[in-house]
Amino acid sequence: MKESWSAFDTFEHHFRPLVVIELAKDAKEETKEWLTQRIVDKKKNGGAQLLVKPLVKEDGGKIDGNQNVYLVGASHIRLLLGAETVGLVKECNDNSMRTFTYSSRNTFKDFAEDNHDFLTMAERQYIIKHELENLRAKDERMIPGYPQAKLYPGKSIMRRLMTSGILLQIFPLHDTEELKKLRDTWYGQVKISYQPLDQIRCYFGETIALYFGFLEYFTFALVPMAFIGIPYYVFAWEDYDKYVMFASFNLLWSTVILEVWKRCCAIMTYRWGTLLMKRQFEEPRPGFHGVLGINPVTGREEPVYSSIKRQIRIYLVSLPFVCLCLYFSLYVMMIYFELETWALDFHEENESYFSKLMLFLPSIIYAIVIEMMNRIYRYAAEFLTSWENHRLESSHQNHLILKVLVFNFLNCFASLFYIAFVLFDMKLLRQSLATLLITSQILNQFVEALLPYWLQKRHNKKAKKRVYSIKVDTDLSLFEQVNLEKEMGTYLGTFDDYLELFLQFGYVSLFSCVYPLAAVFAVLNNITEMYSDALKICRVFKRPFSQPTANIGVWQLAFETMSIISVVTNCALIGLSPQVNALFPDSKTDLILIVVLAEHILLALKFVMAFVIPDKPRDIQIKLARLEFESLEALKQQQMKLAAESLKEETHGEKKMN
Amino acid sequence: MKESWSAFDTFEHHFRPLVVIELAKDAKEETKEWLTQRIVDKKKNGGAQLLVKPLVKEDGGKIDGNQNVYLVGASHIRLLLGAETVGLVKECNDNSMRTFTYSSRNTFKDFAEDNHDFLTMAERQYIIKHELENLRAKDERMIPGYPQAKLYPGKSIMRRLMTSGILLQIFPLHDTEELKKLRDTWYGQVKISYQPLDQIRCYFGETIALYFGFLEYFTFALVPMAFIGIPYYVFAWEDYDKYVMFASFNLLWSTVILEVWKRCCAIMTYRWGTLLMKRQFEEPRPGFHGVLGINPVTGREEPVYSSIKRQIRIYLVSLPFVCLCLYFSLYVMMIYFELETWALDFHEENESYFSKLMLFLPSIIYAIVIEMMNRIYRYAAEFLTSWENHRLESSHQNHLILKVLVFNFLNCFASLFYIAFVLFDMKLLRQSLATLLITSQILNQFVEALLPYWLQKRHNKKAKKRVYSIKVDTDLSLFEQVNLEKEMGTYLGTFDDYLELFLQFGYVSLFSCVYPLAAVFAVLNNITEMYSDALKICRVFKRPFSQPTANIGVWQLAFETMSIISVVTNCALIGLSPQVNALFPDSKTDLILIVVLAEHILLALKFVMAFVIPDKPRDIQIKLARLEFESLEALKQQQMKLAAESLKEETHGEKKMN
Repeated sequence: MKESWSAFDTFEHHFRPLVVIELAKDAKEETKEWLTQRIVDKKKNGGAQLLVKPLVKEDGGKIDGNQNVYLVGASHIRLLLGAETVGLVKECNDNSMRTFTYSSRNTFKDFAEDNHDFLTMAERQYIIKHELENLRAKDERMIPGYPQAKLYPGKSIMRRLMTSGILLQIFPLHDTEELKKLRDTWYGQVKISYQPLDQIRCYFGETIALYFGFLEYFTFALVPMAFIGIPYYVFAWEDYDKYVMFASFNLLWSTVILEVWKRCCAIMTYRWGTLLMKRQFEEPRPGFHGVLGINPVTGREEPVYSSIKRQIRIYLVSLPFVCLCLYFSLYVMMIYFELETWALDFHEENESYFSKLMLFLPSIIYAIVIEMMNRIYRYAAEFLTSWENHRLESSHQNHLILKVLVFNFLNCFASLFYIAFVLFDMKLLRQSLATLLITSQILNQFVEALLPYWLQKRHNKKAKKRVYSIKVDTDLSLFEQVNLEKEMGTYLGTFDDYLELFLQFGYVSLFSCVYPLAAVFAVLNNITEMYSDALKICRVFKRPFSQPTANIGVWQLAFETMSIISVVTNCALIGLSPQVNALFPDSKTDLILIVVLAEHILLALKFVMAFVIPDKPRDIQIKLARLEFESLEALKQQQMKLAAESLKEETHGEKKMN
Repeated sequence: MKESWSAFDTFEHHFRPLVVIELAKDAKEETKEWLTQRIVDKKKNGGAQLLVKPLVKEDGGKIDGNQNVYLVGASHIRLLLGAETVGLVKECNDNSMRTFTYSSRNTFKDFAEDNHDFLTMAERQYIIKHELENLRAKDERMIPGYPQAKLYPGKSIMRRLMTSGILLQIFPLHDTEELKKLRDTWYGQVKISYQPLDQIRCYFGETIALYFGFLEYFTFALVPMAFIGIPYYVFAWEDYDKYVMFASFNLLWSTVILEVWKRCCAIMTYRWGTLLMKRQFEEPRPGFHGVLGINPVTGREEPVYSSIKRQIRIYLVSLPFVCLCLYFSLYVMMIYFELETWALDFHEENESYFSKLMLFLPSIIYAIVIEMMNRIYRYAAEFLTSWENHRLESSHQNHLILKVLVFNFLNCFASLFYIAFVLFDMKLLRQSLATLLITSQILNQFVEALLPYWLQKRHNKKAKKRVYSIKVDTDLSLFEQVNLEKEMGTYLGTFDDYLELFLQFGYVSLFSCVYPLAAVFAVLNNITEMYSDALKICRVFKRPFSQPTANIGVWQLAFETMSIISVVTNCALIGLSPQVNALFPDSKTDLILIVVLAEHILLALKFVMAFVIPDKPRDIQIKLARLEFESLEALKQQQMKLAAESLKEETHGEKKMN
């Protein structure tokens, strides 16, 4: 091990910048020196042993003002050792997937000492990010130059720099050439093709590739629903039995697609190696704080935080707060409906141009209030989740998602539920559903991708003019590239994209028997969504860091819960429909009982199906079992060796005694 | 490795019999010789390398007639190597649990070369059973002496001997001294104490200890329900709100106890080592047949059977058959109810002594028919599950249990459901429930334990008289002991015991709001059940083979499903109760809607609780994670060594080229 770590002591001639660090303009020299020293310092001294270079103009001249942008890279061997640290899984020569180790590097496919592309650029950047984030304070009590920025042993330095406002951002650089290639295959041609998921994964990492994989899968899965939904619209079918059939098909279909997605996901992530990555040995997330202690699993030193304290925070603070917010949101909705009736009454009483305007007022106010609540709640949720102090990034994300999800669900669907089950107005429901679905889709695409793209383009042009080159999009110097990219917006993760899909799934399935056409709109939206999302991630935002992941996490649960709720709502809607009511003129009781029975049977069917369909295809199961078997055998081997050694020592001892 | 296997070539002087093999009286000499040869043959020759001795009288004289009973034992070192083969997990000196390997034996707690009690007797017998069952045919085409008993490479010899009727039984011997000690602490004293689970586990193995653990846990869990149920009976409470409260408490309580049981179970089985035993690398079960191939997981040679064929058999044959049987059972129930009304009519029309007798006829006929159906169905289920040809014993058991369970559930509860939800007769329901519960409990205990015990005692006395010694219970010679034990009945596993508990849980929870006293009877029954089951397993039956297991398997699922069904039934019963109906004199619709709403909320609460309560306590989770981490690190180490070796070879090659 020692040999390897010292093998790259000499500064590499061929420095390839991978990650950019931007410090505050007024950061002190002292701090900068200390930071760069810590970054290049040897591992054994507690450094990250990376390469770091200030950003300078190509002609070598210093730029004006303070130097505050640094480029970080690493030698080839350092990256390989880092790949071992983060536990990357790569394909071996015998086509099996294995955890990469530096010493077994020759057994891996496509490995060669001079093949610098063995690790994808996304992986290299992920390794550097990981190393930077895990650069921890030793005996420093504070950040040099900033006495108020306290440090304690084990505290992540980058995190403290960030919270103190000294570090503005860390982001990975684009590879203009690769990006161009990717864009060409992805959305360059106007032809229908599958998403280039493997390429996306190589460039942006697994989380984003998995999102596009899910988006594509989900769109394909919606196509049958859309096809079956069209004739309902075209022929204006209103028959009871046809609606029941459509709803039943929808409900079972949604179970099947969610179960099958797990299998598809397992196939993909096995190929990408993330299915095998062990998440429980993750390093604590950078924001995690606690007293320095020993991790009971790995035996390594790291911050430790009592799980009971976290539980108390979750259940005694976060949970009541979320409930309160939900209650408040419902309260606001009730006010909106009251305002609505009041406006209607007002309009009827004194009809005028002003009263007509007044009719729109409640909706506008409600929309604004909802948007405001959403934003405030999002901040609160982020603050609370940070405060809960989860050890793992994944667990932090899950808790955040759960909080935001519940609130968004209520905000989006509460009014529809109210219309359907309190006002019993199916016409209004269909109308509201269509309006909400279509406007939200159009608005989303505009706000999310097209508008930022246009702004970005304008901004780029201006920026380029300032940086004295008008060559658009081609052959930018590194200096220009960094300066352009650092001004781009930050992609905040797949959260909002998944949320959009989740709400769309809600519109499609919750009231599917009232509005079968929803699936058609969803499919159309998703096709353009693929393009606009691709555009967004390639052109609008800074390149995001890759994040290895094995599944879509809590979203799977969210979609499954939605599909369970939709069974209940659809059954209830069918029970409420006048056609069905006409079938039971005498007794509403029989009707309700039959509907409830049908609902229970459907729910039972869903659970049986979820239980019967295995989550992983058989061949993946076998491969995983084989790996586990091998690792067990290896453990046995090691124990044997230890035992043999201890035996030897014992006999030695005995001999001496004799 | 080689050294170890050859270290026990010499026949041990101190032969300790562990397992008894009884062959048919007319088994051919040739066969016996071949079998004993195969059993004692070395591992490398495909034998089991065990010790075998014919059973002879203590005075050395041959017994009359053919010699057909053999005692099997093994040397200490052979047992240790066998423990490694079966993957036993034992406690180490540092209190962690690890898979036992012969070479690391000195790191294990209580290990000493001369400590023959390092492995419990149950473990030793399990190892021998495992080795015997995995004694497989090499190039034999048939069993010598029996041309019709075909063999093919890889076929389990013992299994073929069994199916050909040459081998009558294999069973482990009791350890009279240990058994006496166990009995004393278990049910010797008339005082209330916890079950001696660790002792039971040492003597009978994990499956049986886990059953008694569950029985005890379940009884304790029922106590609160029983306590709350008593005042309902004493004060004859019939209020709506009290019943609702009792039912709600019951439903949430049953969820909690089932979730907490998983945690208790994890704690116990971690201590016993079975939580860590890897089940997926199990050898195929003895009855498993297929073409000899390569196991894709382990890379070892073993029979292989297409999983698709098995799926086809399960879904296209077994499933329809089970459904047909269920339909038939329902049909029989309907006939019973028709007969019942017919008998009642007959009695009313011409009242006489004969007609009074006739009143009982339908019930008697129905009981007999149900019993017959149960037995026939059981045979069919066993045949079908064998025919499905599951690779693992556990999977075989699960499929068998599922089949029998569904049928038994219907047979037991269908009539109650009919009374409750078709006849709407709550009085009759309470009556039937009480009758069924109490009679089934009394009958069960009698038929299951007391009757066999009495028969056994009589039989033993006779047998002992025949074997010319009248000393009861003490100092039996080995010869006598074997001859007594081989005549005892065979314990067929915990299946029927769990089934009884499952049905009891059904009686308690399905209609809990109609008959709160059920829990009281269940508690009383379970206390005596513990004693009668202990008596049964210690005195009535042959000692069963130990079977390592980490949980109660499919029964957990069965109990959870029951608790979900009971939410539905209880809500429906409350909705049907006249008190509740009186609250909604105008609209039955409102009532039903409220009941359905309450049911949905309760179900949602159950799922949330099941999701929130972790299945394993935190410290067990950490210990498991640490073990996984270590095994991964070991794998890395091994890869490193391999890589280093391959590097060395390469440099050697290069040097030669130079």
